[in-house]
Amino acid sequence: MPIMIYLAGPDVFLPNAIEVGKKKMAICEEFGFEGLFPADNDFGAKAGSAAIFRANCAKMKRADIGVFNLSPFRGPSADPGTVFELGFLFSQNRPVYGYSNARKSYVTRVAAAAGPLQHRDGRPVDRDDRAVENFDLNDNLMIVEAICASGGEIAFPPEGQDAFASTALETIPAFRACLEIVRRRFH
Amino acid sequence: MPIMIYLAGPDVFLPNAIEVGKKKMAICEEFGFEGLFPADNDFGAKAGSAAIFRANCAKMKRADIGVFNLSPFRGPSADPGTVFELGFLFSQNRPVYGYSNARKSYVTRVAAAAGPLQHRDGRPVDRDDRAVENFDLNDNLMIVEAICASGGEIAFPPEGQDAFASTALETIPAFRACLEIVRRRFH
Repeated sequence: MPIMIYLAGPDVFLPNAIEVGKKKMAICEEFGFEGLFPADNDFGAKAGSAAIFRANCAKMKRADIGVFNLSPFRGPSADPGTVFELGFLFSQNRPVYGYSNARKSYVTRVAAAAGPLQHRDGRPVDRDDRAVENFDLNDNLMIVEAICASGGEIAFPPEGQDAFASTALETIPAFRACLEIVRRRFH
Repeated sequence: MPIMIYLAGPDVFLPNAIEVGKKKMAICEEFGFEGLFPADNDFGAKAGSAAIFRANCAKMKRADIGVFNLSPFRGPSADPGTVFELGFLFSQNRPVYGYSNARKSYVTRVAAAAGPLQHRDGRPVDRDDRAVENFDLNDNLMIVEAICASGGEIAFPPEGQDAFASTALETIPAFRACLEIVRRRFH
């Protein structure tokens, strides 16, 4: 039985989501794993949200490892559905790994999205005077520290890769870099 | 022993986070519960992210119930740290409840933030041609359906409440409405 990897990410919202899912599952196979892609597009246009939720939870429970596409989605952070699943699988004691098309720190991304940061008591705040986590992490500390605590890592597109593929939401180069780390750990 | 409630939310990023935490814990007491506020501000300015992560996980494990401030934060969705914790506590079979300062559906909020939506195969997509979940839910389906599946609900500020308090990030009127629901269920 190959090790099963749950492939969380906002890839399910892409116009070519089914194709991207098949591609990532094929790459898993190439690395000796079996990939489980979320069920969001499995039921056609008439799927109910409760059915998708239950199917995703069932797939997560079948998985041995979680690999999370943490590329920023509609804001400076990862897709919240993906982050929910990270909390779920971490809590189930599964090893969790991340990959992202955005190597910059969270604080840098917030500044880029929302304009220059101010400071309060020496710590960065956004234009609404809300603190911006400044730990030199790639996203909210709960996301990054969960991955570290489980023994995982976050991978980015290696230097010199195809720039378009690297920055695309599905970021295949970062995904491959992540699976390379997982393979070294588990094979 | 009172029932213990973990009070997740982006409240920890407010300039008066400690005061808001104390207020929400006092409201919990008023309802006969004990509130546990996240540890983000417990260690002063020199806290490391790993220490905060471990302290929050320890507080979640002590909690009987999770109550989540899902008010939109730096985008159309809830704060990702909060969503991580929702996945974590749901996965630990704790009942989870939500409250939010924003009653509108997710699809409405995306349109408000990112401009008018287009359609692909009859389904809404954003300006980057990425599908926008359109289930008449308040946020990503994993968030809302987890709360439903655990037997919880999402509360909003009741009509006719102080408008400023209702729309503030800490949204005390919606928090009280949520605790009212929790009290009816557990007392």
